[in-house]
Amino acid sequence: MVMLGADGLGGLPLTPGGKTELETAKTPNLDALAARGIQGASIPVLPGIAPGSGPGHLGLFGYDPLKYVIGRGALEATGIGFQLQPGDVAIRGNYCTLDSNGNISDRRAGRIASDESAPLAVKLRDVKIPGIEVFVEPVKEHRFVVVLRGPGLEGNVKDTDPQKTGVSPLKAEAVDAGSQKTADVANEFIAQATKILAGQPKANGLTLRGFASRPNLPTYEEVYGLKAAAIAVYPMYKGLASLVGMTLVGKAQTLGEQVDLLKQHWNDYDFFFLHFKYTDSTGEDGNFNEKVKKIEELDAVLPRISELNPTVLIVTGDHSTPSYLKSHSWHPVPTLLVSDCCRTDGHKTFGENTSIQGGLGQFKAKYLMSLALANAGRLGKYGA
Amino acid sequence: MVMLGADGLGGLPLTPGGKTELETAKTPNLDALAARGIQGASIPVLPGIAPGSGPGHLGLFGYDPLKYVIGRGALEATGIGFQLQPGDVAIRGNYCTLDSNGNISDRRAGRIASDESAPLAVKLRDVKIPGIEVFVEPVKEHRFVVVLRGPGLEGNVKDTDPQKTGVSPLKAEAVDAGSQKTADVANEFIAQATKILAGQPKANGLTLRGFASRPNLPTYEEVYGLKAAAIAVYPMYKGLASLVGMTLVGKAQTLGEQVDLLKQHWNDYDFFFLHFKYTDSTGEDGNFNEKVKKIEELDAVLPRISELNPTVLIVTGDHSTPSYLKSHSWHPVPTLLVSDCCRTDGHKTFGENTSIQGGLGQFKAKYLMSLALANAGRLGKYGA
Repeated sequence: MVMLGADGLGGLPLTPGGKTELETAKTPNLDALAARGIQGASIPVLPGIAPGSGPGHLGLFGYDPLKYVIGRGALEATGIGFQLQPGDVAIRGNYCTLDSNGNISDRRAGRIASDESAPLAVKLRDVKIPGIEVFVEPVKEHRFVVVLRGPGLEGNVKDTDPQKTGVSPLKAEAVDAGSQKTADVANEFIAQATKILAGQPKANGLTLRGFASRPNLPTYEEVYGLKAAAIAVYPMYKGLASLVGMTLVGKAQTLGEQVDLLKQHWNDYDFFFLHFKYTDSTGEDGNFNEKVKKIEELDAVLPRISELNPTVLIVTGDHSTPSYLKSHSWHPVPTLLVSDCCRTDGHKTFGENTSIQGGLGQFKAKYLMSLALANAGRLGKYGA
Repeated sequence: MVMLGADGLGGLPLTPGGKTELETAKTPNLDALAARGIQGASIPVLPGIAPGSGPGHLGLFGYDPLKYVIGRGALEATGIGFQLQPGDVAIRGNYCTLDSNGNISDRRAGRIASDESAPLAVKLRDVKIPGIEVFVEPVKEHRFVVVLRGPGLEGNVKDTDPQKTGVSPLKAEAVDAGSQKTADVANEFIAQATKILAGQPKANGLTLRGFASRPNLPTYEEVYGLKAAAIAVYPMYKGLASLVGMTLVGKAQTLGEQVDLLKQHWNDYDFFFLHFKYTDSTGEDGNFNEKVKKIEELDAVLPRISELNPTVLIVTGDHSTPSYLKSHSWHPVPTLLVSDCCRTDGHKTFGENTSIQGGLGQFKAKYLMSLALANAGRLGKYGA
């Protein structure tokens, strides 16, 4: 099985009644697949709800994004490619500027530049807390990530950011007894880190936010009995795939390299998730024509995937990113499934309007994996 | 945002394969909106379920009608335009005829005429109960409404109507401890009221049914952050809108006056609900041609709404009322949503069959408000 996740695939026309990016793109290979496949419109979460990348991918992976929630800190760590382990607590950190009284004068340390802030994260690795491994990773500008690893850590701890200036950062405070140790460790981290940062012109203080345990997601092996691999370029999607137990394969930098890896590892896994970022980023940029081009690039690699003769091939996305809106949106995502038993719906092209009329109708993203497994002959009967 | 609720909008053809009322009506303005909008078929509650006005409108307003229930008494009070306050208990009353032994000889007081029964409700206002405000309002024929207002009243009290003749009315009996005070107050009301009615030729007794607290519905302001107004003609719909915190605007008697009010108050609210009754009442009458005419009247005012340039314009109904069935029905309701980012679905007309093929597909009514908010750019992303 191959699931090709074209991030933000769905779009909008620039003028009502016009064509979307996908409908504008010349996609002979998608069209050929449409002719022998079945299409539908995937609702990422619920009608009207635009998801972030976390819930968007959870849905595609078959996990109800309303039931499984990836906490802010865990998503942030995942987003920079940090491989969270069960029991880890991840925290989003912000550098701030403290005045001589220890009160916050700038909550974002003057939006310090990344090349100034990155070395600070390295310095903060000098924090030592007995029995706890502390990881500090730079993010952009005033942001960093802290991951605490050790026994007995839970993630229910309040933010230390008071959300205003003129007051000192708050102490980390546990919301429940199980998180007391995390709060204590966080306060020790803050104390040592504040000493390390003392004397910095802008970033002489810090706040911690979005404490979150690694989400407890059952793995693809456990849920589906699948040996699954993810072939992605960007850390966020590698991270999301690893949260559901997919093996991260290779270090591809281009779609072509991703398909190379797919071929190389074809016999090693039951399921491959390939992530294609640029349908989203061009949409976010509001660049209709560029998004069209990226869809055409995607189309161009399809024959190389098809020639592997996957039992089930799915082309979809985690949400729509219409260049008209320059953002993730709620619009259902055109989704195409090809197998020998998919019940072809007769469409000869693949796009937003055909998907609405497709044989899969409109369906919640979380059901796509069941459809994939069924088409692969990997689901037994329900009941006798 | 404007939501135009054409009550009972959906219909049926008189002969299989024929056209419905909406498909028969000449609706150039709806057709023009369809060409730049997206349509779908709204399922009021669940497939096969015909809702009453209460659950029908709760769904349209975005409240799951299976979760939020308006008790019979509360709906009855709302239906006559009584503005229930939190903590009120509303009760449906029936006049009955008692024989010389105090047993019921007619459960509906010989279906006493409204002009005979209405003065009785005024007499019953003489009931005085310390610490409790008692409101008595006439309804049609043998029916009236009692509202009890005061501290500590809950609505879990059994009906006093024994559902048969030859026995005396029951005592009001609390189902739980929290409703004991209500039962006591109701029994005191019954005692005093029975004295007041003594000597009436038909209506010399009464029964109480459908005890119900005002439903505890979060408001539009709380749920959606919307300042919302309702422009309705009939008390029931004003009442339903006020239960979700909409402001009732003006005293329109016609659709034209409703649109006048919309224009006058255009800058005062974020969201307007306009209710049009006559698509339902003509359906209930089984008058196909008249329902067609009412739909054409509705169509005729649309340009005056469109020229206000609403960010989102929705035309829908709370349920279908096919004149063929002369009643509310379960059939999905044609629903049209127009915005600049709605993803137009290419239909050029608006009707039952196009709505089934529309870009919104078939959806539960409770999701319509999320779609409205999304199209208005008023919903943030879910997750990061």
